[in-house]
Amino acid sequence: MSVDLYAWAEELDSLHAHAWQRLVRGVHDRHAPARHPTLATVSPEGWPQARTVVLRAADRVNRTLQIHTNLYSPKIAHLTATPIAALHVWDSRQRLQIRLHADVEIGHGAAVASTWSAVPERSRVAYSRSQSPGQLMHTALAYEAQPDQAAFAVLRLHVRMMDLLHLGPNHRRAQFSRDLGWAGRWLAP
Amino acid sequence: MSVDLYAWAEELDSLHAHAWQRLVRGVHDRHAPARHPTLATVSPEGWPQARTVVLRAADRVNRTLQIHTNLYSPKIAHLTATPIAALHVWDSRQRLQIRLHADVEIGHGAAVASTWSAVPERSRVAYSRSQSPGQLMHTALAYEAQPDQAAFAVLRLHVRMMDLLHLGPNHRRAQFSRDLGWAGRWLAP
Repeated sequence: MSVDLYAWAEELDSLHAHAWQRLVRGVHDRHAPARHPTLATVSPEGWPQARTVVLRAADRVNRTLQIHTNLYSPKIAHLTATPIAALHVWDSRQRLQIRLHADVEIGHGAAVASTWSAVPERSRVAYSRSQSPGQLMHTALAYEAQPDQAAFAVLRLHVRMMDLLHLGPNHRRAQFSRDLGWAGRWLAP
Repeated sequence: MSVDLYAWAEELDSLHAHAWQRLVRGVHDRHAPARHPTLATVSPEGWPQARTVVLRAADRVNRTLQIHTNLYSPKIAHLTATPIAALHVWDSRQRLQIRLHADVEIGHGAAVASTWSAVPERSRVAYSRSQSPGQLMHTALAYEAQPDQAAFAVLRLHVRMMDLLHLGPNHRRAQFSRDLGWAGRWLAP
């Protein structure tokens, strides 16, 4: 495998830029690994919680990401109590692990009406109030999904820190943080 | 897509059994999705932490999983303070999300000597004491990797709860927990 293929991993700036490119790619390409990151939160009982989400927006300039969710899902309860999250992507083709920490802002109602209006009809069934995700049921299919704008929430992640690990011919790891003005630092992999 | 393909998702017992099969498959097949789960922990500062790990063992009878790690990695510090973790797999071919909660036991030294002896020579460089993972460096490749058995640790996950979500022709979600003798319950997806 050519080392040149991974030239972007050799410098802090290009590594950082490449990670954002991969996130943006996830928004636009449903087959890209960053399309389905894992979002980790902490429950009020102190348990780490991890689940697959769909990446809906990635803004490199403002360093924000967006995820849509059901307002009545447990992750909203977790994030209301502890409004921080980790996002994780393993991009196997690039041999790149993207980990980031973010403050999470929950938007719903009128504030996200324009986002809701762009959600395709077939996707709206995920936003239903009649049966909250995670609620006990007597049988497997005893749920109804009535699209309801009131159940639609947008998580806006304000990135604080990004930790990038490239497992190339040489392993490289770097961290970029808001506190340091996004200057990167190499870490032992 | 044939519904029969996902017949295992229709009953609680077969869904549960299938999830364990997929985990076991991850141990033996390096291309299976469960080979590289995401392990989520909580840092002493309260941040959720998520990273890719390699699944090394899955024992369905004892409901334990094993992961190897560097004893000087931050996740050991996190797990020493808060010995619980979540493990996450998105098995895209099966359209199955496996989430589980576990108590984590850290083994090292003489207690894991037999496991260490089975670690291939080429894999041992990950277990080095000279440079701890996550340590700051002045340049990208300023680390040495000297295999060191003293840096080798085995995480044994004792599964408490498993939450399975199948996104098939009909979405189904079920939860299985030790507290309920592993009897499954359907949840709203």
